[in-house]
Amino acid sequence: MNPDITRERENATFDVEKLTHILDGGIEKTKRRREIESLVISDPDFQSEDLNFLSRSERYDAAVKKSAHMILKLREYGISDPEEIYCYKSCVHRGRAEPLDLHLGMFLPTLLNQASPEQMETFFIPAWNLEIIGTYAQTEMGHGTHLRGLETTATYDPATQEFVMNSPTITSIKWWPGGLGKTSNHAIVLAQLHTQGKCHGLQAFIVPLRSMNTHIPLPGVVVGDIGPKFGFDEVDNGYLKLENVRIPRDHMLMKYAKVEADGTYVKPPSAKLTYGTMVFIRSMIVGEAGHALAKSCTIAIRYSSVRHQSEIRPGEPEPQIMDYQTQQYKLFPLLATAYAYKFVGQYMNQVYHRITGDISQGDFSELPELHALSAGLKAFTTWTASAGIEVCRMACGGHGYSRCSALPDIYVNFVPTCTYEGENTVMMLQTARFLIKSYRQASAGHQLSGIVSYLNESERRLQPQSVSSRPTVVNVNDLASLVDAYKLRAAKLVEMAAKSIQQELQKRVSQEDAWNNSAIDLVRASDAHCHYVVVKLFAAKLGEIGDTGVHSVLSTLALLYALQGIQQHSGDFLQTGLLSVPQLSQVSQRLKDLLAQLRPNAVGLVDAFDYRDEMLNSVLGRYDGNVYEHMFEWARRSPLNKTEVHESYHKYLKPLQAKL
Amino acid sequence: MNPDITRERENATFDVEKLTHILDGGIEKTKRRREIESLVISDPDFQSEDLNFLSRSERYDAAVKKSAHMILKLREYGISDPEEIYCYKSCVHRGRAEPLDLHLGMFLPTLLNQASPEQMETFFIPAWNLEIIGTYAQTEMGHGTHLRGLETTATYDPATQEFVMNSPTITSIKWWPGGLGKTSNHAIVLAQLHTQGKCHGLQAFIVPLRSMNTHIPLPGVVVGDIGPKFGFDEVDNGYLKLENVRIPRDHMLMKYAKVEADGTYVKPPSAKLTYGTMVFIRSMIVGEAGHALAKSCTIAIRYSSVRHQSEIRPGEPEPQIMDYQTQQYKLFPLLATAYAYKFVGQYMNQVYHRITGDISQGDFSELPELHALSAGLKAFTTWTASAGIEVCRMACGGHGYSRCSALPDIYVNFVPTCTYEGENTVMMLQTARFLIKSYRQASAGHQLSGIVSYLNESERRLQPQSVSSRPTVVNVNDLASLVDAYKLRAAKLVEMAAKSIQQELQKRVSQEDAWNNSAIDLVRASDAHCHYVVVKLFAAKLGEIGDTGVHSVLSTLALLYALQGIQQHSGDFLQTGLLSVPQLSQVSQRLKDLLAQLRPNAVGLVDAFDYRDEMLNSVLGRYDGNVYEHMFEWARRSPLNKTEVHESYHKYLKPLQAKL
Repeated sequence: MNPDITRERENATFDVEKLTHILDGGIEKTKRRREIESLVISDPDFQSEDLNFLSRSERYDAAVKKSAHMILKLREYGISDPEEIYCYKSCVHRGRAEPLDLHLGMFLPTLLNQASPEQMETFFIPAWNLEIIGTYAQTEMGHGTHLRGLETTATYDPATQEFVMNSPTITSIKWWPGGLGKTSNHAIVLAQLHTQGKCHGLQAFIVPLRSMNTHIPLPGVVVGDIGPKFGFDEVDNGYLKLENVRIPRDHMLMKYAKVEADGTYVKPPSAKLTYGTMVFIRSMIVGEAGHALAKSCTIAIRYSSVRHQSEIRPGEPEPQIMDYQTQQYKLFPLLATAYAYKFVGQYMNQVYHRITGDISQGDFSELPELHALSAGLKAFTTWTASAGIEVCRMACGGHGYSRCSALPDIYVNFVPTCTYEGENTVMMLQTARFLIKSYRQASAGHQLSGIVSYLNESERRLQPQSVSSRPTVVNVNDLASLVDAYKLRAAKLVEMAAKSIQQELQKRVSQEDAWNNSAIDLVRASDAHCHYVVVKLFAAKLGEIGDTGVHSVLSTLALLYALQGIQQHSGDFLQTGLLSVPQLSQVSQRLKDLLAQLRPNAVGLVDAFDYRDEMLNSVLGRYDGNVYEHMFEWARRSPLNKTEVHESYHKYLKPLQAKL
Repeated sequence: MNPDITRERENATFDVEKLTHILDGGIEKTKRRREIESLVISDPDFQSEDLNFLSRSERYDAAVKKSAHMILKLREYGISDPEEIYCYKSCVHRGRAEPLDLHLGMFLPTLLNQASPEQMETFFIPAWNLEIIGTYAQTEMGHGTHLRGLETTATYDPATQEFVMNSPTITSIKWWPGGLGKTSNHAIVLAQLHTQGKCHGLQAFIVPLRSMNTHIPLPGVVVGDIGPKFGFDEVDNGYLKLENVRIPRDHMLMKYAKVEADGTYVKPPSAKLTYGTMVFIRSMIVGEAGHALAKSCTIAIRYSSVRHQSEIRPGEPEPQIMDYQTQQYKLFPLLATAYAYKFVGQYMNQVYHRITGDISQGDFSELPELHALSAGLKAFTTWTASAGIEVCRMACGGHGYSRCSALPDIYVNFVPTCTYEGENTVMMLQTARFLIKSYRQASAGHQLSGIVSYLNESERRLQPQSVSSRPTVVNVNDLASLVDAYKLRAAKLVEMAAKSIQQELQKRVSQEDAWNNSAIDLVRASDAHCHYVVVKLFAAKLGEIGDTGVHSVLSTLALLYALQGIQQHSGDFLQTGLLSVPQLSQVSQRLKDLLAQLRPNAVGLVDAFDYRDEMLNSVLGRYDGNVYEHMFEWARRSPLNKTEVHESYHKYLKPLQAKL
């Protein structure tokens, strides 16, 4: 054990284990998670060469191998709780996406939700036993987030009682679905349903893609891998071009919408039913943002405690780089953010499960708010987490650029969350649509409830004339007061966006153009709303924590999170009259104090995330802090060192020398 | 040609070709650059498979092959002007780093600058003819930016007249030098010179690493590749552990410092001589930041003009995504930034060459200012450009994540500039040191000249009492007035940082701790200083441009750049009393107007960068806009599609199905 990191742990002022329990959701959950991790990590079937040393094809191969083992082991151990499956899977693939993700996470659940009882009988057991390996083919080359634009067609032919599936344009080729390229032999394909001469919009169809015996693509099916990406090397994201592929009528998922034998279309009872999955996945992503940032902070903070560099005071030994104020200022606010997002993720998960109960009872009342919240928070957290991972990486200096740091891998595997499951700017504008609608309701005298209820107050408190005269009451040392400041900022920015739309309308442009011409303001308002929600939930979480030591350190983190956000957006707080210039100087000074205050607890706070070395797979983030020996050892094992002399020497350099 | 992109080009209001000449530095330079590009691109010896489809070892192999050809071709064509060599090399390797970079860019120049005449005779011709392939081994595992901390030792043994080279600790292993792992047979090694029982600091030594015949490492030399990285797949960044390696006395570079036969150390005449190279490389990086951002903007803006998505007005065709205000707000300020950095790069290059003349005459007077400027600007431009590349990538939606977009590649190959040649935060603090020193001189009554002369004014104009009473005079429509605002902001933030140090000192902490406890403020001051310099130089560039159409569009860009910076840092401008709240609303409105104004010229402005498709290598950024067909074609060629059925099916999935 590196003596620096041992000393850091001795200096922590709180009980790390207790904080771990809070993060896991209770002592029992921590215990069970550790059991599952041990099961996987001690299992020789899941060992593999360092993935950084493999080609993409080898990485895909290794992932399929592990996934196949995983399916067997889950059944062997009888692990069936979705959360435990998720935990097991994360351990097996070390948090990476894998080829069977969409089979397990989309194909099977979609069958459960949208297949009729007869279809369940036909498809579920074969799919459960992986005779049918499925994926979910929605996104096309030309359309992703804007679903209505999808072009794939399913045209019903009553003569044969079949649907004829087609990709009528180049842009209609299905593109991106995970597991589509090489792994799956079936796909649930989203296509525009045409029957009796009319288009009835998107429906889901089960389309066989490959022979169940030979795995060779079926006639009319052009399928393959979309080629190398920034990350996701383990996943065969695929393309699919359908050329007059005929499937039987019962291959359309018919629990809700139906096509009868003669081609008559029967509408589903409610359009909101498919809403839930999207909300669930976006809520999950918020937690993943906390997770990715927590891993990155663990690596950067442990490394900053063992790396010595340069000098603060001449003649003294080189300090730990964590002693530099600039390093603290890079990392500690991100650490606070990681905690904030983990807590927000927990909250979203709870709300989702509470609301799902209501939905199954046919009560959709809370869904619009949760939908709007999950869209905006997904965008807000993934953007900041992605940027934060890179800050952590660069805070490790040059070594952060080596794949042995694991940080490049964390980045490339997390950053697509900014685009998938709804492109972030579009998500922000969805939240803005809800905010503007709520603002208008409040303006019209309706009393709002829920998270947007502050828009009621805004009508009372934020009249233009009152802004300058209202005394600034924010107390920069009081978290509740800061939550209030964030709330008022959000209210003001929603109001400004609404006014921008109003001004555009006065120029006699259309509603739609007025919206587009105010889009910058709308995104800004959504951002402020999300920021408020995060600060508020972080503050609320503190109320649940009984242990004094843990409460104290988390309070410091929450204050740091709130104050740093104010400093970064000081223009907003000054512009809206919520802070004065002298208060802003107080914020800066207080931030510095908080950094110094957190310094002794930094390693403890990342230890509490409880990532085993096997899960982090980072030489820089090792628990024992013995970085340099292992970096050397890792490098020596890397593929270019398999021979002392690379073949290119004999092929090109020696002949060149002879010619010169 | 895609009709959308054709229409965009028809709508441009300026002569694209004329702007290209300005970017190249004259019509003749454009012509010559294009000649060189054609030479390379039409040369069959430089063709290769798409690098995205190759393993790392294959990419290294392909790079060595091209570099070897390149050496022959450069001699065949008689290309010897450094700028033309650089251009040729960039074409061959498409802007990527390559295994011979340090041989050409560091080993040969260091010999020229630091070898004695006798050493030149011994080493230069063999190195010129690549019998000696060299690299420059400075960075160690434990030390990068902080050079004094390097641990490698060279101990003189007068008995044999040899230096004994050693890596005494694990952290002293040389780490990162390009071409060290597999390519080089020699290295210039920076080591602490010990002679006659005394350490004389860092000196440069020529150390043979591998046999000139067999390329096998010599006894005592442990050398290899440091393993896979985020990018730089073509380069064998290496490690080097020296175990009692003996080299003759004449292998220490002795143009300036010397060790005599008996071990007597002779000091060099000036320590500033090695300063220049560092300044030159950092200046180059500023231009590279413009370059990387220009490429990214070219891809994202061309793609945004052919991608149609969603709807603004119901019932109308899907608009080009460039019509969304949020898309314009993402991309156009970055386009302006790319132009700004290209012009700043030109300026730095000119200043460097002017000052180098003075330096060779022994006049170092301007060097500290240029050194401080190049350090800060390197950090300022590389941070913003790195973040900007990712914004461009994500502005392409999901397809930006595919390697066929080229954006992942641009990012991973550019982002290490934030760390190498001086870690960015350290660079910012170096600039801050110069600023604080200048501020103190001005406070003491010295009249400053050069770029920091505004600190004189600050003493007159920025007295605390005057801030609130001084009327706000910034005109948000006038670039000169905005340059002034940036200047006053910088002056104010330098003053605030100086005062923070002062306050710390009053708490009786040491100078060094006061500095560290003010580091956040110091970085902020440097950032403001650099921002001012960039805005100022962009404005100054406009004065050189005669053509009305080009002048007009560049003026719009410059104004956009200045106003967007104000919006992003509105807190600073409000806090320092330089802008009022109503003016900030004007800034927002003006920004939106400028986005709309630039819209018809966006494609023209990226066309003017004049990147050939072969240089961009991006499916999304194609000149003809025919994105989707080529994306499909690219995917079909990718390695996982070489067989219809991947071997993992037979190895794992089929056996799994049998077991379930």
